[in-house]
Formats: sequence, structure tokens, C-alpha cells
Amino acid sequence: MYRLLDGLQVIEASSFVASPTCGLYLAQMGADVIRIDQIGGGPDFRRWPVTAQGDSLYWENLNRAKRSVALDLSRGEGRELAQALVRATGQLVTNFPASGFLAHDTLAQGRADLITVRVMGWANGAPALDYTVNNAVGYPMLTGEGPDPVNHVLPAWDLLTGAYAAFALLAALRRRDATGLGGEVRVPLSDVAIGTLANLGSLAEVMTTGHDRPRLGNVVFGLFGRDFVTRDGVRTMIVVVTHRQWANLVAALDLGAAIAGIEAARGVSFAQDDGLRYTHRDALFPLFEAAIGARDHADLAAAFDAGGIVHSAYRTMAEAAADPALVRDNPIFAPAANPSGADYPAAGAFASLPGMERLPPCPAPRNGQHSEQVLAEVLGLDSGPLARLIDTGIIGTAR
Amino acid sequence: MYRLLDGLQVIEASSFVASPTCGLYLAQMGADVIRIDQIGGGPDFRRWPVTAQGDSLYWENLNRAKRSVALDLSRGEGRELAQALVRATGQLVTNFPASGFLAHDTLAQGRADLITVRVMGWANGAPALDYTVNNAVGYPMLTGEGPDPVNHVLPAWDLLTGAYAAFALLAALRRRDATGLGGEVRVPLSDVAIGTLANLGSLAEVMTTGHDRPRLGNVVFGLFGRDFVTRDGVRTMIVVVTHRQWANLVAALDLGAAIAGIEAARGVSFAQDDGLRYTHRDALFPLFEAAIGARDHADLAAAFDAGGIVHSAYRTMAEAAADPALVRDNPIFAPAANPSGADYPAAGAFASLPGMERLPPCPAPRNGQHSEQVLAEVLGLDSGPLARLIDTGIIGTAR
Repeated sequence: MYRLLDGLQVIEASSFVASPTCGLYLAQMGADVIRIDQIGGGPDFRRWPVTAQGDSLYWENLNRAKRSVALDLSRGEGRELAQALVRATGQLVTNFPASGFLAHDTLAQGRADLITVRVMGWANGAPALDYTVNNAVGYPMLTGEGPDPVNHVLPAWDLLTGAYAAFALLAALRRRDATGLGGEVRVPLSDVAIGTLANLGSLAEVMTTGHDRPRLGNVVFGLFGRDFVTRDGVRTMIVVVTHRQWANLVAALDLGAAIAGIEAARGVSFAQDDGLRYTHRDALFPLFEAAIGARDHADLAAAFDAGGIVHSAYRTMAEAAADPALVRDNPIFAPAANPSGADYPAAGAFASLPGMERLPPCPAPRNGQHSEQVLAEVLGLDSGPLARLIDTGIIGTAR
Repeated sequence: MYRLLDGLQVIEASSFVASPTCGLYLAQMGADVIRIDQIGGGPDFRRWPVTAQGDSLYWENLNRAKRSVALDLSRGEGRELAQALVRATGQLVTNFPASGFLAHDTLAQGRADLITVRVMGWANGAPALDYTVNNAVGYPMLTGEGPDPVNHVLPAWDLLTGAYAAFALLAALRRRDATGLGGEVRVPLSDVAIGTLANLGSLAEVMTTGHDRPRLGNVVFGLFGRDFVTRDGVRTMIVVVTHRQWANLVAALDLGAAIAGIEAARGVSFAQDDGLRYTHRDALFPLFEAAIGARDHADLAAAFDAGGIVHSAYRTMAEAAADPALVRDNPIFAPAANPSGADYPAAGAFASLPGMERLPPCPAPRNGQHSEQVLAEVLGLDSGPLARLIDTGIIGTAR
């Protein structure tokens, strides 16, 4: 955790991946992110993976370094407390419906400069999730070798939406700092997805060519990139993005003469053109398969590293977790007291700031762990009213 | 484009996807993003997809709404101009090497409060790309049905890194606004990837169980979610994330009695438990396959929509591009004069701000289009020195 966002207080009312990710990134940079939780937890509170005791490893990682106020949101008084917290702090991140009790216009009646960042499914308010937006924009039809579509496993749209929402909140805060104006910022998964197709040129591609890109398996479109298998059976991904890398790869595999032969036969030069290395892959790939298949991985990896060639071996997640550089010796990780009691390292901010102190990652809260503290601090509630709210079940507190 | 970041000037020296994405998000929110380009373009300037004339549809979309200063970065004078632009503005986004002429400490000698956001491959400075980080953390081994790994097509790590970098820049600016302190923020793809495994609970899962999750094809882990095919051959994704959705799905398919039978036989109740709907999928899926396969898509979609059930049909990108709600009638899109001359709609910011004016998307610059303008504006160069720099080939200008 870094203290870049010291002094920024944000209310988060959210579940699933995108909106909690937004709050997580803010909290890992030092913001005081206060979750409003349904007493007993929202719809994702027990989401898998879970421990043998049923505690969610997903929830306790996506909600690190946040505080939890548990409220009975099915009752008017609980909702009014949630609204009061939003108005008192001035910043809300949520994936609750645009028209419910956390509607921006309702909240802004008591806090004119409120900034609400709302993660949505479809832009029109209809429900959508990462996996139903992904197949609606076409990626599964391009993934794998076919004929059936292949879903991604990484919830990429959720994660991108969460990061973008965190960016958008800070952008809106900059405007408010300059002008005093608040407002609502809506970030629908569907617009993140179709906008990304546009940003990467894929929308322009299908609209100008009139047809879909071919399905390429593990081949990277438009340049030299693919998985290959070494003599000792290691599958490795190789991607060439500069002309120097290409020259070094050809040299490392001693393929200069063979490639010159293809260039002469086809009247092309691969030295300065990513596209030609892709369009002539029918001729190039067999050469590389043979050259890579004739050598062991350790030998090749050393030669590739010396030439600045971008490559990496395929691993399982368990293998990745056992890589000391990625986890054990990685400064973004440190121990943390996880509410589940499970023992594993915790991640802090992805970013590293040389010369700035990185504080250890904090654990996720237990449901309602900070109810009394936050309601006293932010709303100035005394012990009498708090006791009544607890007795009547309007607020929950962690045991 | 929205004007949330009015007055913020950022120098971008970057190529490929992550770092340009960071600059794009900033520019679409109103920042003045000034690219420093090698004269004639960097290594991604011709990246596919390209038009028949060889203009990159990828480049001209990832660099919208930015300005371009073209410099001969192979010569000392070109590099000094780049450094002067960074020092004059105070903000740099780059994926150039940490130790080169855009090293933060070098630049900060002339601008103590400089903020540098540096996108990196591996955290130790070794080169990596989206596709070589992805297979190093294990996702391709979980994607598809096996036995071979399946790469993703969406460069998800690049995109997430770009969004996170934009967030991190604004977070660092908030700190500088409060304290006067600048600094470097490093965002390695590798830490974004392994940190994401941690945030989603996947790292905890493999470290506490000691083994990898099974490969699930298009099944979503830990809840009820999968693709099904309707009677008229439409493949559709269905994901249940709330207990109400489950009840409505069972009712919409008239499966209440059949599911009660499974519950009785197995001594479980699916009503309140995502995990059980996943672990008993061997019994549940055949029921749903039959029920969904017996009805046409339009009929089912209407019933699902009425029940708030999250579903969507698989489409190709060309089909998605033809969906009026996603593109033609979507306010994030508008016409723009693309440098390639290709005619297709341009995307602005993903976010929508009700009540704030959305300005039309701007085109990407031509290489060096703003060299003279920016050097005059930011460094105060007069026409005489500019003419000399053009004559000696230190700066390039768009024809």
C-alpha cells in the first residue's frame, strides 16, 4: 500500500468484480474506502474459491484494506444511513442500480458536489456480466482453434472496467477540485468492451473489410508470434515486435540461410515488416518448429535472453505461484492476517514507487467490522443511538 | 471526449498497447497528450490491422486525440528536445527503458517535481509482452477444454496495465498537489498479472489447495454459468449470480420439479448456494441442455429478460459491429476524420457523464503533425531555430 491518496474517503456499495476492483485499487493507494455491506454479506460474499470453512478467498482479496459498515439495506433506516454516509463523504463507487436508493440525483440533493462512479452492465441498465459481454462482442469466436467458441477465464472486462472506474473517479475529482462541480460517471461493461474493440482497431477492421478475422489459435495476429515446443517438451511463447528482435531470433536459431531462401523464392524481405512475417507464416513456422524442436529449453532461453527476444514458457498457476521472482521475493507481496485464517501472501498495489515507502497490504474487513467506528466518525453518532441501531438490527457488527 | 482533465499536459513516449492506452484514456478525458514519436513512426506505427495502403487501424485508434512531435531520437539533439518537453510539462507516460535517456532521475534533475509513469514488461526490466506474461501466470492452461493451452486474443494485461497507469498518474498528481512531491511510478505487466491472480483469490486458491483448478471449458468456476444451444441453434451464455436469478431461471424453464428431485436425491438445496449449483453441475447441466434445446432463442430471451436473468448470444465481431445499440446508436461513437482515410466510427471515452457535454472523438495525429506547434508553445522556440531543426532533420513535420 502507498499513501498517494491520503485523505480521500470513498463509499463503496458493490459486489462481484468490477466495482470492488475499483475500490481495491483506491484503497491500495491509500484512500479510506468504506464498504456498505448488507448485514451478513452481499451476493458475492461467499463466492468461490472458498476455504474448507466456506470463507471466500475471492472476497477477502478483492476487498483488502477497506472498512466495512454492515447495514440492513432492506429497511428504510438502513438505506438512509447509507445515503447519509455517501453525502457526508462526497464520493461513491457502486454497481447498484442507477434508479434505486443510490441514484445519483437522489443523493446529490443533500450533497450538490457529489461524485458517483457507477459500474453498469449494459449501458441501458440491463444486467450483464463479464462473461455475457465478452461473447456479445465476439472474442470467444476468435479464441482457440475452433469450431466452437472459447470463453476467457480471466474476467478481463470486469478488471478493465474497475481500473477505468478508479481512473474516472480521480479525473472527476480533478474537475471538482478545479470547478467545484460534481456529477455521475457511468462506466458500463458493454461500452468498455465495444470501445476497446474500437481502440484496438478491430472494429475498424471488421467494418472496413466486412468480415471477421480468421481464427488463429495461439498465433498472434499481424506479426511473428506463436507457441513452439522445445526438444525437451517445453511449450514456449515467442513474440517478435522489433526488427532487431527478428534479426536476433533468426541468428539465435541459425536460420539465416533458410529464411533468405524463402525471401528469394517469394520476393519479399522479412527484415523490416511485421506483416510479412505474419502473412508468410505457412513457410516460416515449419522452419522455426524444426529449429526450436531440435534444442532444449534452457539452451534456447539463454540464447533468446541474450538477444532481447521476448519469450516465456507456459506454466500452470501453481507453477507461477511457486516462482520466487513473481511471489516470494516480489515486493508487492507481504504477509497479512486474512479473515479466513488461510495462510498465503497478500498483494498490495501493482505499481512500485522507487524511493517511497510501501506499507504492508492490509486484510479485508469482517462484515460490519467498522460499523460503529465509521458511523461515529463520519456521521457523529454517539453510543446511545449506535446501541439502538444495533439492538434493532439496522446495523450489524462483526463478532 | 469529456473535459475532466482540462489543463493537464502529458508527454507520452510509447509504443505497443499498454502505454498508448494510458495516454488515450487521458486524452479522451480532456488532457493534452503530446506524443514524442520517432520521425517516421516507432515500432508499432504499421501494426496490423492495416488498410490496403498500409496505414495502421490499430495505431490511429490507440492514439486518438493526441498530438505528435516527431524527433530523431537517435541523435543527441533530438533526445534533448524530448527531455526538455518532459521537464517543461512535468508529466511523462512511457514504456521506454528505465535506464535510458528517459530515466526518471535524469529527467528530474531539471524538474524536481516530475511525475513519470513507466509501463514495464517484467518488474526487473526484462522485456515482456501481454502474450508472454499471460502464459507465464497460467491462464492459457485453464482456457478451453484441453489438452493444449489456449492463448487469449484480447490483450487483457496490456489494457488493464494501461488503465491502471492512467489511474496511477492521477493518484500521483493528487499527492503532488497536496505535497509538492513528484516521483516515478512503475507499472510492470508482470506485477499487474500476478497481482490480479492474488486479487481474484486464485493465488490463494492454488497456494492453499496445492493444486490447479480443473480446466472447465466454457463453464464458469464456482457458480452456475455455461453456454447452451437453443432449438434454433443459437449458442447463448447464461450466468446466475443471485438467488433470485436462479429461482427465475428455474421457473422460466419449468424445471422446478426436476430440480427438486435432484435436491432430494442428493440431500442439497440449490436455492441459496452458488457453490452447490457448480459442484452438482453433472446433474444440473443435462436438465438445462434439454430444456433450452427444446425452445427457440427469441422465446427464451424474452423469458430470461423478464426474469432479470443474465444471458447473451454468442456473436462474431462483425455481428457485434452491426448491433445498432453497441455502435450506430451508441453515444460513445461519432464520426472522425481518420488519418488513413478509412471510414468508420470513432470511440470516445468509455464513461458517460449525464448532464455533461460529450465532445466528438478526435482523430489521431499524423507523424510530426504538431512538431512546430508544440515546440513553439511548450519550449518557446521561434521560427528560426525551428527551421534549423527541420533542415537538419532533428524534427520531422507531417506533409
